Amino acid sequence: MGIDQALLAIDRTCGSGSVLTDADLLASHAHDESEVAPQQPAAVVRVRSTSEVSAVLRAAHEHGVPVVPRGGGTGRVGGAVPVQGAIVLAFERMADVVHIGREDLTAMVEPGVVLGDLHRAVEAEGLFYGPDTNSLDSCRLGGNIGTNAGGPRTLKYGPTRDWVLGMTAVTGDGTVLELGKRTSKGVTGYDLTSLVVGSEGTLAVVTRATVKLVPAPEAVATLLVFVPDLGSAGRAVGAALGEGILPRCVELLDPLALELVRAGAGVPVPDGARAMLLIELDGVERSLETQLERCGEAMLAAGAVEVLVAKDGTERERLWSARRDLSHALRRSARHKLSEDVVVPRTRIPDLLARCATLAERAAIRMPTYGHAGDGNLHVNFLWDDPAKRPQVDAAIRSLFEAVVELGGTLTGEHGIGVLKAPYLPLEQAPELIALQERIKSLFDPRGILNPGKIFPADVRRHFHGAC
Amino acid sequence: MGIDQALLAIDRTCGSGSVLTDADLLASHAHDESEVAPQQPAAVVRVRSTSEVSAVLRAAHEHGVPVVPRGGGTGRVGGAVPVQGAIVLAFERMADVVHIGREDLTAMVEPGVVLGDLHRAVEAEGLFYGPDTNSLDSCRLGGNIGTNAGGPRTLKYGPTRDWVLGMTAVTGDGTVLELGKRTSKGVTGYDLTSLVVGSEGTLAVVTRATVKLVPAPEAVATLLVFVPDLGSAGRAVGAALGEGILPRCVELLDPLALELVRAGAGVPVPDGARAMLLIELDGVERSLETQLERCGEAMLAAGAVEVLVAKDGTERERLWSARRDLSHALRRSARHKLSEDVVVPRTRIPDLLARCATLAERAAIRMPTYGHAGDGNLHVNFLWDDPAKRPQVDAAIRSLFEAVVELGGTLTGEHGIGVLKAPYLPLEQAPELIALQERIKSLFDPRGILNPGKIFPADVRRHFHGAC
Repeated sequence: MGIDQALLAIDRTCGSGSVLTDADLLASHAHDESEVAPQQPAAVVRVRSTSEVSAVLRAAHEHGVPVVPRGGGTGRVGGAVPVQGAIVLAFERMADVVHIGREDLTAMVEPGVVLGDLHRAVEAEGLFYGPDTNSLDSCRLGGNIGTNAGGPRTLKYGPTRDWVLGMTAVTGDGTVLELGKRTSKGVTGYDLTSLVVGSEGTLAVVTRATVKLVPAPEAVATLLVFVPDLGSAGRAVGAALGEGILPRCVELLDPLALELVRAGAGVPVPDGARAMLLIELDGVERSLETQLERCGEAMLAAGAVEVLVAKDGTERERLWSARRDLSHALRRSARHKLSEDVVVPRTRIPDLLARCATLAERAAIRMPTYGHAGDGNLHVNFLWDDPAKRPQVDAAIRSLFEAVVELGGTLTGEHGIGVLKAPYLPLEQAPELIALQERIKSLFDPRGILNPGKIFPADVRRHFHGAC
Repeated sequence: MGIDQALLAIDRTCGSGSVLTDADLLASHAHDESEVAPQQPAAVVRVRSTSEVSAVLRAAHEHGVPVVPRGGGTGRVGGAVPVQGAIVLAFERMADVVHIGREDLTAMVEPGVVLGDLHRAVEAEGLFYGPDTNSLDSCRLGGNIGTNAGGPRTLKYGPTRDWVLGMTAVTGDGTVLELGKRTSKGVTGYDLTSLVVGSEGTLAVVTRATVKLVPAPEAVATLLVFVPDLGSAGRAVGAALGEGILPRCVELLDPLALELVRAGAGVPVPDGARAMLLIELDGVERSLETQLERCGEAMLAAGAVEVLVAKDGTERERLWSARRDLSHALRRSARHKLSEDVVVPRTRIPDLLARCATLAERAAIRMPTYGHAGDGNLHVNFLWDDPAKRPQVDAAIRSLFEAVVELGGTLTGEHGIGVLKAPYLPLEQAPELIALQERIKSLFDPRGILNPGKIFPADVRRHFHGAC
């Protein structure tokens, strides 16, 4: 068997203790945080260096064995779920912040670094790294890079791609490439760094990255804004952005989402509040007062029922508690839950929410929606109890994606395509464009061993026909 | 001849008046602003739409005719210099700002839009577009996208790639693709938008782009800082960035550059000043005072001889006059001038300048240096009068690039590789990486008709052997 020969070769090169086939470990590497059916890998290899990753890929390439690079396993679309007979690459042993260049405003990191650890390391130097996924205490940089991860602060600071300057990456046949640059600026050649970021592990395995940093903002303030209806919420978001201020986040909870967290909202939800906005501003201490005043006034002018402000860490956390708890509150509130991460131009959010209301009514399900309203990235949830409803839910999901594309949006804002969204890719992208991407993949990975069954509809059908 | 058949087909599709072969017009499309020897195209085609661009490329693909997309012709490395028998695509008739989404913070633009016109259009709406090349009143968005153009403000706002969300692009065989997104966020599929940005017209012709906008900063202030030596300049740059403030630009003039503009510096250069920094801060009006104070104090602590501050437009322009005039002042000061646009990590700027001093001494030439010190992007100039010195200059240029790579930098910060830097590409990139990029090109452009003779050393030698 190819897999046995590959594992033998890997064991010889990487040393004993690298190839792991312990049953519990395989089980814990069989899934991510999506609904994709778990599939145990044939082995987990804990790599320690670029040359070990290269050795694994050379062996896998030679023997035709699929390889699935895995970060923290926090993905939401099955991107890290192995196909049958795969080797999972695990990066716990490559988890160093190798270097922080305080004056160069760069850091060199290994893919196993947990995002929250990078935050703490650079913040200790008075610096700041933008992306802040909800899973920041367990997701790893390699996974962030693979999915071009975002988070609330993406509104002001952009997603992971905007922060990755260069990388060491290993392609499907084990070739080690130095991509991009180690400086904040540079335009030499094609931007293969940006191509690999967000490619969901299908083009290359990142073994080291140079990321950009910025000086840490001196102060942060949070506004919690209750509004009487979605119309006011839309006006409020527009007003916040129209004040010449770019908040670092503008989060929205729609009426159903707000209802679900009412009890655990950290603050009393006032009568007449039907939606909630969470706005964060940052910058120089003295400027925050001005920004807060203006933003607060704009909220009241847009019809806000109540505006709460917090400037210190504990108070800010209290205002965030409702938003942070939301995903779990949703899960508790129904037997079945699916969540779709879509984007529309921010002015089309009201249209999207109106479509959602229609879809929910038609399928007789609940569809609470929340997310990063500032950049039009909403998490639309589908909640139902009766398993027999699944076909209606699936129809509603397809209709949602059709609506999103029709409104000028995109299928995914930060979770990726993975397994779950691949069937819908043709709604957004023309066959020529999908084919071009498949041909690019085959340049990086001639035998198609890198994270197979992800992104591309035909490839996903081949490997996950039962799962989506 | 292929070219005649291609032009006939184009004339039939695009209508009379599209294909231009007037001698003056051909001559004016034979060069850019580099030292690459001019080469007249066979024809200039003034396109009006995506479908016309597609028709031109289909005809050119069929008949094997090279096509050179041209923006404002302001490039510095020969990227828009035609090869023999080429069709130049000109975009004066595709120069509309199609739409500004004030609340969506996006604009849809045609490639012929002059960058300064886009600035004015979005600023009229209280919005802001980041990239600000020195040639902003003549360069066009299509060229900016092709070169991933930067400018002083790149330090805070990033280069063109950070602003392009999506595009309509036509590949080498005339296929029209919709790449990327029209929203600020989105991670569907591979980021082919970022791949096309900065590909110097070798992958696809951009016919429309959606760009990101941000709210316009309320206020801008400029500091002109005179320092007694380069060591103080380095400390001052570090101090400015270490204050928790990210200036929008930090420009440096080294002693030779300062000497050249002393007479036209707009302000008296104080005794003891041997280098000059130009720092710009922007943000909320009230925060600027604080930022200015802190930044000014940090400059004095770093040893500045004098710090001048300007907040209104006219005063700011006066402080900028020395920097703006520099390129021309350099040209006036010697019979021969070459300028190389390199990047090193900002902490290595002193090392780079020390190397330059050695190189200048060895070749007995002058090498004034200036540029975007905040992001380590310097324009190193080579000035000489005796034409016989050219071999020494060429040797110095190669040594400069070797030093840049050794210091962890990159060959080009914002001008691109084009014709002139292609011979040095192997100093920075491994053969496997260059080969991979060539294979990617052949997917987008199977007959190699799109801007041949650019970026790739072998291809450049084939077309421009005499020029570099």
